Amino acid sequence: MKSGLSIHQTKALWFDSKLNQVVIIDQTVLPHQYIEHRVGSALEMVDAIRSMKLRGAPLIGTAAAYGMYFAFIEAKRSNQFQPVFESTKSQLHSARPTAVNLMDAVDFMIPFCHPDHENIQVLEAAQQYENQNNQACYGIGLNGLELIRDIYTKTKKTVQILTHCNAGWLATGTYGTATAPIYLAHEAGIPVHVWVDETRPRNQGANLTSWELMQMQVPHTVIADNTGGHLMQHAMVDMVIVGSDRTTANGDVANKIGTYLKALAAFDNKIPFYVALPLSTIDFELCDGISQIPIEERGSEELTHILGIDEQNMIRNIRIYAESTSVINYGFDVTPARLVTALITEKGVVKANKEAISRLTNFEL
Amino acid sequence: MKSGLSIHQTKALWFDSKLNQVVIIDQTVLPHQYIEHRVGSALEMVDAIRSMKLRGAPLIGTAAAYGMYFAFIEAKRSNQFQPVFESTKSQLHSARPTAVNLMDAVDFMIPFCHPDHENIQVLEAAQQYENQNNQACYGIGLNGLELIRDIYTKTKKTVQILTHCNAGWLATGTYGTATAPIYLAHEAGIPVHVWVDETRPRNQGANLTSWELMQMQVPHTVIADNTGGHLMQHAMVDMVIVGSDRTTANGDVANKIGTYLKALAAFDNKIPFYVALPLSTIDFELCDGISQIPIEERGSEELTHILGIDEQNMIRNIRIYAESTSVINYGFDVTPARLVTALITEKGVVKANKEAISRLTNFEL
Repeated sequence: MKSGLSIHQTKALWFDSKLNQVVIIDQTVLPHQYIEHRVGSALEMVDAIRSMKLRGAPLIGTAAAYGMYFAFIEAKRSNQFQPVFESTKSQLHSARPTAVNLMDAVDFMIPFCHPDHENIQVLEAAQQYENQNNQACYGIGLNGLELIRDIYTKTKKTVQILTHCNAGWLATGTYGTATAPIYLAHEAGIPVHVWVDETRPRNQGANLTSWELMQMQVPHTVIADNTGGHLMQHAMVDMVIVGSDRTTANGDVANKIGTYLKALAAFDNKIPFYVALPLSTIDFELCDGISQIPIEERGSEELTHILGIDEQNMIRNIRIYAESTSVINYGFDVTPARLVTALITEKGVVKANKEAISRLTNFEL
Repeated sequence: MKSGLSIHQTKALWFDSKLNQVVIIDQTVLPHQYIEHRVGSALEMVDAIRSMKLRGAPLIGTAAAYGMYFAFIEAKRSNQFQPVFESTKSQLHSARPTAVNLMDAVDFMIPFCHPDHENIQVLEAAQQYENQNNQACYGIGLNGLELIRDIYTKTKKTVQILTHCNAGWLATGTYGTATAPIYLAHEAGIPVHVWVDETRPRNQGANLTSWELMQMQVPHTVIADNTGGHLMQHAMVDMVIVGSDRTTANGDVANKIGTYLKALAAFDNKIPFYVALPLSTIDFELCDGISQIPIEERGSEELTHILGIDEQNMIRNIRIYAESTSVINYGFDVTPARLVTALITEKGVVKANKEAISRLTNFEL
């Protein structure tokens, strides 16, 4: 099928109150196809999260909140609220192991999911969670915008920003995390250019970030994941901004596999390396990312096979490795706090260390 | 077409004296097809090098030596030896900008290409150049074997080796450079396991190194280029061995794009990072790799398109990015000597610095 996209809106997920369904953009076929996928039950939501039709830590959180809403309805409809609710809840909880937002959203929803409550109360709670997420992204954008503006004020040249994976509005709902400062800078008339890491094996950079930036008309260039170090050595990158799936209390950052390598290159070339994240992504129970954050191992076909468009404009899934090639596919890596210049959060830009994070969040450690 | 490979021999290039042709394995369709490609003129050799039917610095050298042999024959056949010879020579010289072996081979052949000489004398010179290359690889293998043996003696566990791109016999003729120590260790009964970087955009790791290791029955696993840092953080890598396209007099290493990122990760995790190279790959005229080595920029279709096998076992070339995606494709990067534990050469293992290299090569700097 040909591309021919018709975009509903720059939102990655929305609630259809008429049909009592959540609508998501199927991110597994972008940029080749634009498909709106409807989710009407908790298990459909688990499947959408697990199959990565939707992905990105904050969006997974919002999706899980709506998933809890469906779980509540289904439990109420059954004759045994607690066991049904508990079983669905735990499936939602474990749909993706790395995203702390998943746990956060589930925890947020639990008090609202009392069997005496009405459906509308639980729905409103999910919507409140979604709004908080979107507000956080906007806040990140405003705070990160100042960092971009500072560079532009000094250099008076296009600000060159490298990003890895997709931490855009497709990953969060609106604005994105890593992209929020970029979108706001672009809107403010600051010239920016984005180096988009392809982000193997799923190519979320080439497929999603590039697609988003195209919609927003932000100048950008896709590169192989191998390229960032070379660009940094040659002063072609002013700053790196990435997202985070999970951040520890001391500022270690779990993000898409390969983030650590870019952080090393930025450090080696004295280029600021920022991580943009809503505070909800911080897991205050962890203080050593490398030993404590479990890293998801995903299916080998994400490496061995790839989706694309053939000469006849047909979507095809082809095998790019020899048959029976042995592969391993880790989804994330951990960038130690010592390589992170600062975290860009909705409450402010903060050094990646325990004291600074704790001060910002007023969280007792 | 289905895979069904029938391998001639574990050589990447050989001379067919009956037809006066060079036969090469077409590396652009491996591992999906095994095709022997015949080259009978200097310009066909230029094309084979430029289109990467053959690649790898040492093999490019050998190919260029035979290319010079063809250039000599063609110049003699014409009525104006010098202009014809010079023109072909300069085309050979510039077929790939990064490989110093290309220049080395051309320079080696020049004195033999005197108009008074017989064809057979020039052919023998090319064969001598090829043999030197293969001898060098064997020497690299013997020297690198001891490094692997040392690790095994200490740990008594399978030695985990990470490599990037293809620096195997497909890249050199026989043995390979980075793979030579691995093949000799495997033969010597030392248990080894190789992490093979996929090596985007051309996937020489997944396509060629993995294929080679399969033929040789060396245990290995293909990973996305993003993965090496994570493996190193978790003590899953004992050593890194990569090849080099060009090394400066002070030990800076130009190799496939992304090598620098793995060197940074190895350094950060105190894992030895070795570069295996024949001394012919050292360019004694250069002493600062990052500023002095020109980095080849290659076609965008290497990123935007990919070759594979569809559900009907047909080879297909599909577009994996959205149409009109802006991309840039640098072929190499430079790893500064400070990140290189040592160079493994045919003359010995040597620190990556000017004095040590100069002592080993007896080259006056």
